[in-house]
Amino acid sequence: MSFLFNNVTIIGVGLIGGSLARVLKAKGLAGRVVGSGRSRESLEQAIRLGVIDAIGQGPAYGVEDADLVVLASPVGTFVRIMQDIAPHLKQGAIVTDVGSVKGGLVRSIGQVLPVGCHYVPGHPIAGREKSGVAEAAENLFNGKRCILTPGPSTDAKAFELVRRVWIAAGALVTEMDADLHDKVFGAVSHLPHVAAFAMMTAVAELNTGTEEYLKFSGGGFRDFTRIAASSPEMWRDICLMNRENLVQKIDRYLASLNQLKRDIAAGDGQRLEKHLQHASNIRRGLE
Amino acid sequence: MSFLFNNVTIIGVGLIGGSLARVLKAKGLAGRVVGSGRSRESLEQAIRLGVIDAIGQGPAYGVEDADLVVLASPVGTFVRIMQDIAPHLKQGAIVTDVGSVKGGLVRSIGQVLPVGCHYVPGHPIAGREKSGVAEAAENLFNGKRCILTPGPSTDAKAFELVRRVWIAAGALVTEMDADLHDKVFGAVSHLPHVAAFAMMTAVAELNTGTEEYLKFSGGGFRDFTRIAASSPEMWRDICLMNRENLVQKIDRYLASLNQLKRDIAAGDGQRLEKHLQHASNIRRGLE
Repeated sequence: MSFLFNNVTIIGVGLIGGSLARVLKAKGLAGRVVGSGRSRESLEQAIRLGVIDAIGQGPAYGVEDADLVVLASPVGTFVRIMQDIAPHLKQGAIVTDVGSVKGGLVRSIGQVLPVGCHYVPGHPIAGREKSGVAEAAENLFNGKRCILTPGPSTDAKAFELVRRVWIAAGALVTEMDADLHDKVFGAVSHLPHVAAFAMMTAVAELNTGTEEYLKFSGGGFRDFTRIAASSPEMWRDICLMNRENLVQKIDRYLASLNQLKRDIAAGDGQRLEKHLQHASNIRRGLE
Repeated sequence: MSFLFNNVTIIGVGLIGGSLARVLKAKGLAGRVVGSGRSRESLEQAIRLGVIDAIGQGPAYGVEDADLVVLASPVGTFVRIMQDIAPHLKQGAIVTDVGSVKGGLVRSIGQVLPVGCHYVPGHPIAGREKSGVAEAAENLFNGKRCILTPGPSTDAKAFELVRRVWIAAGALVTEMDADLHDKVFGAVSHLPHVAAFAMMTAVAELNTGTEEYLKFSGGGFRDFTRIAASSPEMWRDICLMNRENLVQKIDRYLASLNQLKRDIAAGDGQRLEKHLQHASNIRRGLE
Protein backbone atom coordinates (compact mmCIF):
# COMPACT_ATOMS: atom_id res chain seq x y z
CA MET A 1 0.00 0.00 0.00
CA SER A 2 1.38 3.37 -0.90
CA PHE A 3 0.62 6.45 1.15
CA LEU A 4 0.54 10.10 0.11
CA PHE A 5 2.83 10.68 3.13
CA ASN A 6 4.63 7.98 5.11
CA ASN A 7 4.95 10.12 8.24
CA VAL A 8 2.83 13.08 9.23
CA THR A 9 3.35 15.20 12.35
CA ILE A 10 0.46 17.34 13.51
CA ILE A 11 1.38 20.06 15.97
CA GLY A 12 -1.72 20.96 17.94
CA VAL A 13 -4.17 18.06 18.05
CA GLY A 14 -7.40 19.89 18.84
CA LEU A 15 -10.63 20.07 16.85
CA ILE A 16 -9.00 20.97 13.53
CA GLY A 17 -5.70 19.08 13.87
CA GLY A 18 -7.51 16.06 15.28
CA SER A 19 -10.12 16.05 12.51
CA LEU A 20 -7.39 16.26 9.88
CA ALA A 21 -5.59 13.35 11.59
CA ARG A 22 -8.79 11.32 11.38
CA VAL A 23 -9.08 12.09 7.65
CA LEU A 24 -5.43 11.10 7.01
CA LYS A 25 -5.95 7.76 8.72
CA ALA A 26 -9.46 6.98 7.49
CA LYS A 27 -8.58 7.73 3.87
CA GLY A 28 -5.26 5.88 4.02
CA LEU A 29 -3.28 9.01 3.15
CA ALA A 30 -0.67 8.64 5.89
CA GLY A 31 1.32 5.67 7.13
CA ARG A 32 1.79 7.06 10.60
CA VAL A 33 0.37 10.14 12.30
CA VAL A 34 2.36 11.68 15.15
CA GLY A 35 0.70 14.31 17.30
CA SER A 36 2.46 16.86 19.46
CA GLY A 37 1.69 20.00 21.40
CA ARG A 38 1.79 21.54 24.80
CA SER A 39 -0.94 19.51 26.54
CA ARG A 40 0.28 16.00 27.38
CA GLU A 41 -3.17 15.11 28.71
CA SER A 42 -4.88 16.05 25.48
CA LEU A 43 -2.33 14.08 23.41
CA GLU A 44 -2.88 10.99 25.55
CA GLN A 45 -6.60 11.43 24.97
CA ALA A 46 -5.90 11.62 21.21
CA ILE A 47 -4.07 8.27 21.38
CA ARG A 48 -6.88 6.66 23.37
CA LEU A 49 -9.41 7.94 20.80
CA GLY A 50 -7.32 6.52 17.95
CA VAL A 51 -6.82 9.99 16.45
CA ILE A 52 -3.00 9.73 16.39
CA ASP A 53 -0.54 6.81 16.47
CA ALA A 54 2.15 8.33 18.68
CA ILE A 55 3.14 11.42 20.62
CA GLY A 56 6.02 13.50 19.24
CA GLN A 57 8.66 14.30 21.86
CA GLY A 58 11.25 16.96 22.48
CA PRO A 59 11.87 20.51 21.28
CA ALA A 60 11.48 19.45 17.61
CA TYR A 61 7.91 18.21 18.23
CA GLY A 62 8.71 14.86 16.58
CA VAL A 63 9.11 16.30 13.08
CA GLU A 64 12.41 14.53 12.35
CA ASP A 65 10.84 11.82 10.18
CA ALA A 66 7.87 13.83 8.97
CA ASP A 67 7.10 14.08 5.26
CA LEU A 68 4.26 16.45 6.15
CA VAL A 69 4.09 18.78 9.15
CA VAL A 70 0.74 20.41 9.96
CA LEU A 71 0.71 23.53 12.14
CA ALA A 72 -2.65 23.36 13.93
CA SER A 73 -1.95 25.02 17.28
CA PRO A 74 -3.20 28.59 17.95
CA VAL A 75 -2.11 30.69 14.97
CA GLY A 76 -0.02 33.00 17.15
CA THR A 77 2.39 30.14 17.93
CA PHE A 78 3.25 29.18 14.33
CA VAL A 79 6.32 31.37 13.77
CA ARG A 80 7.94 30.39 17.07
CA ILE A 81 7.24 26.69 16.40
CA MET A 82 8.70 27.02 12.90
CA GLN A 83 11.85 28.51 14.42
CA ASP A 84 12.02 25.54 16.81
CA ILE A 85 11.48 22.83 14.20
CA ALA A 86 13.32 24.34 11.21
CA PRO A 87 16.73 22.81 12.09
CA HIS A 88 15.10 19.37 12.48
CA LEU A 89 13.03 19.16 9.30
CA LYS A 90 14.23 16.58 6.81
CA GLN A 91 15.03 17.54 3.24
CA GLY A 92 11.91 17.69 1.09
CA ALA A 93 9.54 17.96 4.06
CA ILE A 94 6.31 19.84 3.41
CA VAL A 95 4.92 22.21 6.04
CA THR A 96 1.32 23.33 5.91
CA ASP A 97 -0.91 25.18 8.36
CA VAL A 98 -4.58 25.75 9.17
CA GLY A 99 -4.31 29.35 10.36
CA SER A 100 -7.16 31.83 9.97
CA VAL A 101 -4.74 34.58 8.89
CA LYS A 102 -2.33 34.34 6.02
CA GLY A 103 -0.60 37.44 4.52
CA GLY A 104 2.07 38.47 7.03
CA LEU A 105 2.15 35.02 8.61
CA VAL A 106 2.96 33.38 5.27
CA ARG A 107 5.88 35.79 4.78
CA SER A 108 7.19 35.17 8.32
CA ILE A 109 7.05 31.39 7.94
CA GLY A 110 8.71 31.65 4.52
CA GLN A 111 11.63 33.47 6.10
CA VAL A 112 12.24 30.67 8.61
CA LEU A 113 11.73 27.76 6.19
CA PRO A 114 14.96 25.84 5.48
CA VAL A 115 16.16 25.50 1.88
CA GLY A 116 14.87 22.23 0.43
CA CYS A 117 11.66 22.26 2.46
CA HIS A 118 8.28 23.48 1.18
CA TYR A 119 5.47 25.50 2.72
CA VAL A 120 1.83 25.42 1.55
CA PRO A 121 -0.38 27.88 3.46
CA GLY A 122 -3.94 26.73 4.16
CA HIS A 123 -7.12 27.78 5.94
CA PRO A 124 -10.00 25.31 6.30
CA ILE A 125 -13.29 27.09 7.06
CA ALA A 126 -14.91 24.96 9.73
CA GLY A 127 -16.93 25.76 12.83
CA ARG A 128 -14.63 26.51 15.72
CA GLU A 129 -16.89 27.42 18.61
CA LYS A 130 -16.19 23.99 20.02
CA SER A 131 -12.65 22.90 20.60
CA GLY A 132 -10.62 19.96 21.79
CA VAL A 133 -9.72 16.61 20.31
CA ALA A 134 -12.86 14.95 21.73
CA GLU A 135 -14.87 16.89 19.12
CA ALA A 136 -12.59 15.89 16.23
CA ALA A 137 -14.47 14.22 13.37
CA GLU A 138 -13.50 12.84 9.99
CA ASN A 139 -16.38 14.73 8.35
CA LEU A 140 -15.66 18.16 9.89
CA PHE A 141 -14.41 19.58 6.59
CA ASN A 142 -16.94 17.80 4.40
CA GLY A 143 -18.62 20.31 2.09
CA LYS A 144 -16.74 23.21 3.71
CA ARG A 145 -14.32 25.51 1.94
CA CYS A 146 -10.59 25.24 2.38
CA ILE A 147 -8.54 28.19 1.13
CA LEU A 148 -4.98 27.59 -0.02
CA THR A 149 -2.82 30.65 -0.60
CA PRO A 150 0.24 29.60 -2.61
CA GLY A 151 2.68 32.31 -3.69
CA PRO A 152 4.96 32.50 -6.76
CA SER A 153 7.63 30.47 -4.95
CA THR A 154 5.35 27.69 -3.68
CA ASP A 155 6.51 24.28 -4.91
CA ALA A 156 3.95 22.88 -7.37
CA LYS A 157 4.30 19.26 -6.28
CA ALA A 158 4.01 20.12 -2.58
CA PHE A 159 0.94 22.25 -3.33
CA GLU A 160 -0.67 19.36 -5.22
CA LEU A 161 -0.08 16.91 -2.35
CA VAL A 162 -1.62 19.25 0.24
CA ARG A 163 -4.51 19.95 -2.11
CA ARG A 164 -5.18 16.21 -2.35
CA VAL A 165 -5.43 15.92 1.42
CA TRP A 166 -8.16 18.58 1.53
CA ILE A 167 -9.99 17.09 -1.43
CA ALA A 168 -9.94 13.73 0.38
CA ALA A 169 -11.40 15.50 3.43
CA GLY A 170 -14.35 16.51 1.27
CA ALA A 171 -13.42 20.20 1.28
CA LEU A 172 -14.08 22.63 -1.56
CA VAL A 173 -10.57 23.88 -2.25
CA THR A 174 -10.12 27.47 -3.41
CA GLU A 175 -6.85 29.21 -4.24
CA MET A 176 -6.47 32.82 -3.25
CA ASP A 177 -3.76 35.43 -2.78
CA ALA A 178 -2.65 35.52 0.88
CA ASP A 179 -3.20 39.27 1.34
CA LEU A 180 -6.58 39.12 -0.37
CA HIS A 181 -7.46 36.27 2.00
CA ASP A 182 -6.86 38.53 4.98
CA LYS A 183 -8.99 41.32 3.53
CA VAL A 184 -11.87 38.95 2.78
CA PHE A 185 -11.75 37.10 6.09
CA GLY A 186 -11.20 40.32 8.00
CA ALA A 187 -14.63 41.30 6.65
CA VAL A 188 -16.68 38.09 6.72
CA SER A 189 -15.14 36.37 9.75
CA HIS A 190 -12.84 38.45 11.96
CA LEU A 191 -15.13 41.50 12.10
CA PRO A 192 -18.25 39.47 13.05
CA HIS A 193 -16.30 37.75 15.80
CA VAL A 194 -15.17 41.08 17.26
CA ALA A 195 -18.76 42.33 16.99
CA ALA A 196 -20.12 39.25 18.80
CA PHE A 197 -17.53 39.51 21.60
CA ALA A 198 -18.35 43.22 21.99
CA MET A 199 -22.09 42.48 22.02
CA MET A 200 -21.75 39.98 24.87
CA THR A 201 -19.73 42.44 26.91
CA ALA A 202 -22.08 45.33 26.22
CA VAL A 203 -25.27 43.42 27.00
CA ALA A 204 -23.82 41.82 30.12
CA GLU A 205 -22.94 45.25 31.48
CA LEU A 206 -26.16 47.01 30.58
CA ASN A 207 -28.37 48.23 33.31
CA THR A 208 -31.73 46.85 32.24
CA GLY A 209 -33.37 47.06 35.62
CA THR A 210 -33.38 43.30 36.21
CA GLU A 211 -30.60 40.89 36.99
CA GLU A 212 -32.26 38.13 35.01
CA TYR A 213 -32.73 39.79 31.66
CA LEU A 214 -30.44 37.39 29.77
CA LYS A 215 -33.01 34.65 30.23
CA PHE A 216 -35.26 36.61 27.88
CA SER A 217 -32.75 36.48 25.07
CA GLY A 218 -34.37 34.70 22.14
CA GLY A 219 -32.96 32.67 19.27
CA GLY A 220 -31.81 35.81 17.46
CA PHE A 221 -29.56 36.93 20.30
CA ARG A 222 -28.20 33.44 20.80
CA ASP A 223 -27.38 33.02 17.12
CA PHE A 224 -25.86 36.47 17.00
CA THR A 225 -23.52 35.84 19.91
CA ARG A 226 -22.82 32.13 19.41
CA ILE A 227 -19.38 32.84 17.96
CA ALA A 228 -18.50 34.82 21.09
CA ALA A 229 -18.05 31.45 22.83
CA SER A 230 -14.99 30.85 20.61
CA SER A 231 -11.51 30.58 22.12
CA PRO A 232 -10.29 33.98 23.36
CA GLU A 233 -6.67 32.93 22.89
CA MET A 234 -7.19 31.99 19.26
CA TRP A 235 -9.12 35.15 18.52
CA ARG A 236 -6.58 37.36 20.28
CA ASP A 237 -3.97 35.98 17.87
CA ILE A 238 -6.17 36.33 14.79
CA CYS A 239 -7.14 39.91 15.67
CA LEU A 240 -3.54 40.98 16.24
CA MET A 241 -2.19 39.19 13.17
CA ASN A 242 -4.78 40.79 10.89
CA ARG A 243 -4.69 44.07 12.80
CA GLU A 244 -4.46 46.51 9.91
CA ASN A 245 -7.35 45.07 7.89
CA LEU A 246 -9.46 44.47 10.95
CA VAL A 247 -9.21 47.98 12.38
CA GLN A 248 -10.28 49.32 9.00
CA LYS A 249 -13.28 46.99 8.94
CA ILE A 250 -14.26 47.79 12.53
CA ASP A 251 -14.23 51.47 11.53
CA ARG A 252 -16.57 50.76 8.64
CA TYR A 253 -18.90 48.86 10.97
CA LEU A 254 -18.84 51.67 13.54
CA ALA A 255 -19.87 54.04 10.73
CA SER A 256 -22.87 51.82 9.82
CA LEU A 257 -23.93 51.57 13.45
CA ASN A 258 -23.62 55.31 13.92
CA GLN A 259 -25.73 55.91 10.84
CA LEU A 260 -28.57 53.71 12.16
CA LYS A 261 -28.20 55.34 15.57
CA ARG A 262 -28.56 58.80 14.00
CA ASP A 263 -31.68 57.72 12.08
CA ILE A 264 -33.20 56.31 15.27
CA ALA A 265 -32.24 59.24 17.51
CA ALA A 266 -33.65 61.68 14.93
CA GLY A 267 -36.84 59.62 14.61
CA ASP A 268 -36.29 59.59 10.83
CA GLY A 269 -38.42 56.56 9.90
CA GLN A 270 -37.99 57.00 6.16
CA ARG A 271 -34.17 57.02 6.22
CA LEU A 272 -34.10 54.25 8.83
CA GLU A 273 -36.34 51.98 6.76
CA LYS A 274 -34.24 52.67 3.66
CA HIS A 275 -31.09 51.61 5.50
CA LEU A 276 -32.70 48.54 7.06
CA GLN A 277 -34.19 47.55 3.69
CA HIS A 278 -30.77 47.75 2.05
CA ALA A 279 -29.26 45.45 4.70
CA SER A 280 -32.20 43.05 4.59
CA ASN A 281 -32.03 42.73 0.80
CA ILE A 282 -28.35 41.80 0.88
CA ARG A 283 -28.91 39.25 3.66
CA ARG A 284 -31.81 37.63 1.84
CA GLY A 285 -29.57 37.32 -1.22
CA LEU A 286 -27.14 35.22 0.85
CA GLU A 287 -29.49 32.30 1.50
CA MET B 1 -69.47 23.38 23.47
CA SER B 2 -68.35 26.51 25.23
CA PHE B 3 -65.59 28.69 23.86
CA LEU B 4 -63.24 31.03 25.70
CA PHE B 5 -64.29 33.62 23.09
CA ASN B 6 -67.24 33.31 20.70
CA ASN B 7 -65.81 35.75 18.18
CA VAL B 8 -62.17 36.72 17.70
CA THR B 9 -60.90 39.28 15.20
CA ILE B 10 -57.22 39.20 14.31
CA ILE B 11 -55.92 42.32 12.63
CA GLY B 12 -52.82 41.38 10.65
CA VAL B 13 -52.88 37.70 9.69
CA GLY B 14 -49.18 37.08 9.08
CA LEU B 15 -46.81 34.64 10.78
CA ILE B 16 -47.76 35.64 14.34
CA GLY B 17 -51.43 36.50 13.86
CA GLY B 18 -51.92 33.45 11.64
CA SER B 19 -50.23 31.12 14.13
CA LEU B 20 -52.37 32.46 16.94
CA ALA B 21 -55.47 31.93 14.78
CA ARG B 22 -54.42 28.33 14.26
CA VAL B 23 -54.03 27.85 18.04
CA LEU B 24 -57.47 29.38 18.72
CA LYS B 25 -59.12 27.02 16.27
CA ALA B 26 -57.11 23.87 17.02
CA LYS B 27 -57.61 24.19 20.77
CA GLY B 28 -61.29 25.05 20.47
CA LEU B 29 -60.80 28.42 22.18
CA ALA B 30 -62.75 30.48 19.65
CA GLY B 31 -66.08 29.91 17.94
CA ARG B 32 -65.22 32.01 14.91
CA VAL B 33 -61.98 33.69 13.85
CA VAL B 34 -62.21 36.73 11.60
CA GLY B 35 -59.05 38.04 9.98
CA SER B 36 -58.49 41.49 8.60
CA GLY B 37 -55.70 43.68 7.36
CA ARG B 38 -54.41 45.64 4.43
CA SER B 39 -53.57 42.78 2.08
CA ARG B 40 -56.69 41.23 0.55
CA GLU B 41 -54.58 38.62 -1.23
CA SER B 42 -52.97 37.45 1.99
CA LEU B 43 -56.36 37.24 3.75
CA GLU B 44 -57.77 35.13 0.90
CA GLN B 45 -54.76 32.87 1.27
CA ALA B 46 -55.50 32.64 5.02
CA ILE B 47 -59.04 31.47 4.24
CA ARG B 48 -57.80 28.90 1.72
CA LEU B 49 -55.31 27.60 4.30
CA GLY B 50 -58.06 27.30 6.92
CA VAL B 51 -56.32 29.78 9.20
CA ILE B 52 -59.34 32.09 9.50
CA ASP B 53 -63.10 31.62 8.97
CA ALA B 54 -63.93 34.96 7.39
CA ILE B 55 -62.47 38.28 6.29
CA GLY B 56 -63.38 41.35 8.32
CA GLN B 57 -64.62 44.27 6.21
CA GLY B 58 -64.74 48.03 6.41
CA PRO B 59 -63.01 50.71 8.45
CA ALA B 60 -63.73 48.87 11.72
CA TYR B 61 -61.80 45.78 10.54
CA GLY B 62 -64.73 43.52 11.45
CA VAL B 63 -64.43 44.02 15.22
CA GLU B 64 -68.13 44.75 15.79
CA ASP B 65 -68.92 41.28 17.17
CA ALA B 66 -65.49 40.50 18.55
CA ASP B 67 -65.08 39.34 22.14
CA LEU B 68 -61.33 39.40 21.57
CA VAL B 69 -59.40 41.64 19.18
CA VAL B 70 -55.75 40.80 18.50
CA LEU B 71 -53.49 43.51 17.09
CA ALA B 72 -50.91 41.59 15.04
CA SER B 73 -50.05 44.00 12.23
CA PRO B 74 -46.71 45.91 12.28
CA VAL B 75 -46.43 47.47 15.74
CA GLY B 76 -46.28 51.00 14.33
CA THR B 77 -49.89 50.69 13.12
CA PHE B 78 -51.50 49.75 16.46
CA VAL B 79 -52.42 53.21 17.76
CA ARG B 80 -53.96 54.30 14.47
CA ILE B 81 -55.92 51.05 14.21
CA MET B 82 -57.11 51.45 17.82
CA GLN B 83 -58.37 54.92 16.94
CA ASP B 84 -60.23 53.43 13.95
CA ILE B 85 -61.83 50.55 15.82
CA ALA B 86 -62.50 52.16 19.22
CA PRO B 87 -65.99 53.49 18.32
CA HIS B 88 -66.98 50.03 17.01
CA LEU B 89 -65.84 47.81 19.89
CA LYS B 90 -68.67 46.18 21.79
CA GLN B 91 -68.99 46.57 25.55
CA GLY B 92 -66.70 44.17 27.41
CA ALA B 93 -64.48 43.48 24.39
CA ILE B 94 -60.90 42.57 25.17
CA VAL B 95 -58.06 43.96 23.06
CA THR B 96 -54.63 42.37 23.15
CA ASP B 97 -51.52 42.81 20.99
CA VAL B 98 -48.33 40.98 20.04
CA GLY B 99 -46.06 44.03 19.73
CA SER B 100 -42.33 43.86 20.45
CA VAL B 101 -42.45 47.17 22.33
CA LYS B 102 -44.67 47.94 25.26
CA GLY B 103 -44.06 50.98 27.56
CA GLY B 104 -45.16 54.03 25.57
CA LEU B 105 -47.35 51.94 23.27
CA VAL B 106 -49.33 50.55 26.20
CA ARG B 107 -49.99 54.09 27.46
CA SER B 108 -51.07 55.30 24.00
CA ILE B 109 -53.47 52.39 23.49
CA GLY B 110 -54.84 52.88 27.01
CA GLN B 111 -55.71 56.50 26.13
CA VAL B 112 -57.78 55.43 23.10
CA LEU B 113 -59.52 52.46 24.75
CA PRO B 114 -63.29 53.04 25.27
CA VAL B 115 -64.72 52.77 28.78
CA GLY B 116 -66.03 49.25 29.34
CA CYS B 117 -63.42 47.60 27.10
CA HIS B 118 -60.18 45.99 28.34
CA TYR B 119 -56.61 45.93 27.07
CA VAL B 120 -54.05 43.24 27.90
CA PRO B 121 -50.61 43.99 26.43
CA GLY B 122 -48.62 40.98 25.18
CA HIS B 123 -45.39 40.06 23.43
CA PRO B 124 -44.80 36.47 22.29
CA ILE B 125 -41.10 35.76 21.67
CA ALA B 126 -41.06 33.75 18.47
CA GLY B 127 -38.74 33.70 15.48
CA ARG B 128 -39.71 36.40 13.04
CA GLU B 129 -37.14 36.22 10.27
CA LYS B 130 -39.79 34.55 8.17
CA SER B 131 -43.11 36.21 7.64
CA GLY B 132 -46.45 35.69 5.99
CA VAL B 133 -49.46 33.52 6.71
CA ALA B 134 -48.03 30.59 4.71
CA GLU B 135 -45.51 30.09 7.53
CA ALA B 136 -48.14 30.22 10.28
CA ALA B 137 -48.07 27.14 12.52
CA GLU B 138 -50.03 26.03 15.57
CA ASN B 139 -46.76 25.12 17.35
CA LEU B 140 -44.92 28.41 16.71
CA PHE B 141 -45.24 29.52 20.33
CA ASN B 142 -44.70 26.09 21.85
CA GLY B 143 -42.00 26.26 24.53
CA LYS B 144 -41.38 29.95 23.75
CA ARG B 145 -41.83 32.79 26.18
CA CYS B 146 -44.77 35.15 26.02
CA ILE B 147 -44.49 38.33 28.07
CA LEU B 148 -47.65 39.99 29.35
CA THR B 149 -47.33 43.48 30.81
CA PRO B 150 -50.49 44.28 32.76
CA GLY B 151 -50.64 47.58 34.62
CA PRO B 152 -52.50 48.52 37.83
CA SER B 153 -55.67 49.22 35.84
CA THR B 154 -55.67 46.01 33.79
CA ASP B 155 -58.89 44.03 34.30
CA ALA B 156 -58.10 40.80 36.14
CA LYS B 157 -60.63 38.68 34.28
CA ALA B 158 -59.51 39.94 30.87
CA PHE B 159 -55.91 39.28 31.83
CA GLU B 160 -56.75 35.72 32.86
CA LEU B 161 -58.54 34.98 29.57
CA VAL B 162 -55.62 36.24 27.47
CA ARG B 163 -53.19 34.32 29.67
CA ARG B 164 -55.17 31.13 29.01
CA VAL B 165 -54.84 31.60 25.25
CA TRP B 166 -51.03 31.76 25.53
CA ILE B 167 -50.90 28.82 27.90
CA ALA B 168 -52.98 26.84 25.39
CA ALA B 169 -50.44 27.84 22.72
CA GLY B 170 -47.75 26.14 24.81
CA ALA B 171 -46.05 29.42 25.71
CA LEU B 172 -44.22 30.09 28.97
CA VAL B 173 -46.09 33.15 30.21
CA THR B 174 -44.17 35.77 32.20
CA GLU B 175 -45.56 38.97 33.66
CA MET B 176 -43.39 42.05 33.55
CA ASP B 177 -43.65 45.82 33.91
CA ALA B 178 -44.11 47.43 30.48
CA ASP B 179 -41.19 49.87 30.84
CA LEU B 180 -38.90 47.15 32.19
CA HIS B 181 -39.91 45.05 29.17
CA ASP B 182 -38.61 47.74 26.83
CA LYS B 183 -35.30 48.02 28.69
CA VAL B 184 -34.75 44.26 28.65
CA PHE B 185 -35.76 43.76 25.01
CA GLY B 186 -33.89 46.86 23.94
CA ALA B 187 -30.79 45.02 25.20
CA VAL B 188 -31.37 41.38 24.23
CA SER B 189 -33.37 41.83 21.02
CA HIS B 190 -33.54 45.33 19.54
CA LEU B 191 -29.81 46.07 19.90
CA PRO B 192 -28.70 42.77 18.26
CA HIS B 193 -31.07 43.43 15.35
CA VAL B 194 -29.61 46.90 14.80
CA ALA B 195 -26.11 45.39 15.04
CA ALA B 196 -26.95 42.69 12.47
CA PHE B 197 -28.47 45.19 10.03
CA ALA B 198 -25.40 47.42 10.43
CA MET B 199 -23.07 44.44 9.91
CA MET B 200 -24.72 43.51 6.61
CA THR B 201 -24.45 47.08 5.34
CA ALA B 202 -20.85 47.44 6.47
CA VAL B 203 -19.65 44.16 5.02
CA ALA B 204 -21.51 44.66 1.75
CA GLU B 205 -19.81 48.01 1.28
CA LEU B 206 -16.31 46.99 2.28
CA ASN B 207 -13.63 47.06 -0.33
CA THR B 208 -12.10 43.61 0.10
CA GLY B 209 -10.49 43.45 -3.32
CA THR B 210 -12.90 40.87 -4.70
CA GLU B 211 -16.50 41.13 -5.74
CA GLU B 212 -17.26 37.61 -4.58
CA TYR B 213 -16.07 37.72 -0.99
CA LEU B 214 -19.51 37.10 0.51
CA LYS B 215 -19.37 33.54 -0.77
CA PHE B 216 -16.57 32.94 1.74
CA SER B 217 -18.78 33.85 4.66
CA GLY B 218 -18.95 30.82 6.96
CA GLY B 219 -21.59 29.62 9.39
CA GLY B 220 -20.55 32.23 11.97
CA PHE B 221 -21.27 35.14 9.66
CA ARG B 222 -24.54 33.63 8.49
CA ASP B 223 -25.75 33.01 12.03
CA PHE B 224 -24.62 36.45 13.06
CA THR B 225 -26.54 38.21 10.34
CA ARG B 226 -29.56 35.90 10.04
CA ILE B 227 -31.78 38.36 11.90
CA ALA B 228 -30.86 41.07 9.36
CA ALA B 229 -33.26 39.33 6.95
CA SER B 230 -36.15 40.41 9.24
CA SER B 231 -38.80 42.83 8.01
CA PRO B 232 -37.37 46.38 7.67
CA GLU B 233 -40.81 47.89 8.19
CA MET B 234 -41.36 46.04 11.46
CA TRP B 235 -37.90 46.89 12.75
CA ARG B 236 -38.21 50.53 11.74
CA ASP B 237 -41.28 50.72 13.99
CA ILE B 238 -39.67 48.83 16.87
CA CYS B 239 -36.53 50.97 16.77
CA LEU B 240 -38.47 54.22 16.75
CA MET B 241 -40.93 53.13 19.43
CA ASN B 242 -38.14 52.08 21.78
CA ARG B 243 -35.89 54.92 20.71
CA GLU B 244 -34.72 56.19 24.09
CA ASN B 245 -33.66 52.79 25.46
CA LEU B 246 -32.21 51.66 22.18
CA VAL B 247 -29.97 54.68 21.59
CA GLN B 248 -28.58 54.18 25.11
CA LYS B 249 -27.87 50.53 24.37
CA ILE B 250 -26.29 51.26 20.99
CA ASP B 251 -23.99 53.71 22.79
CA ARG B 252 -22.94 51.00 25.23
CA TYR B 253 -22.25 48.63 22.34
CA LEU B 254 -20.22 51.29 20.50
CA ALA B 255 -18.13 51.68 23.66
CA SER B 256 -17.43 47.92 23.79
CA LEU B 257 -16.47 47.86 20.12
CA ASN B 258 -14.21 50.86 20.54
CA GLN B 259 -12.51 49.21 23.47
CA LEU B 260 -11.70 46.07 21.45
CA LYS B 261 -10.60 48.25 18.53
CA ARG B 262 -8.22 50.14 20.82
CA ASP B 263 -6.75 46.88 22.16
CA ILE B 264 -6.26 45.60 18.61
CA ALA B 265 -4.85 48.85 17.19
CA ALA B 266 -2.42 49.09 20.12
CA GLY B 267 -1.41 45.44 19.69
CA ASP B 268 -2.17 44.92 23.39
CA GLY B 269 -2.63 41.13 23.43
CA GLN B 270 -2.99 40.88 27.19
CA ARG B 271 -5.83 43.40 27.47
CA LEU B 272 -7.48 42.05 24.32
CA GLU B 273 -7.46 38.48 25.61
CA LYS B 274 -8.84 39.64 28.96
CA HIS B 275 -11.74 41.38 27.22
CA LEU B 276 -12.43 38.46 24.86
CA GLN B 277 -12.25 36.01 27.76
CA HIS B 278 -14.82 38.02 29.71
CA ALA B 279 -17.23 37.95 26.75
CA SER B 280 -16.62 34.28 26.05
CA ASN B 281 -17.27 33.31 29.68
CA ILE B 282 -20.63 35.07 29.71
CA ARG B 283 -21.64 33.50 26.39
CA ARG B 284 -20.69 30.01 27.53
CA GLY B 285 -22.82 30.56 30.62
CA LEU B 286 -25.84 31.12 28.36
CA GLU B 287 -25.94 27.63 26.85
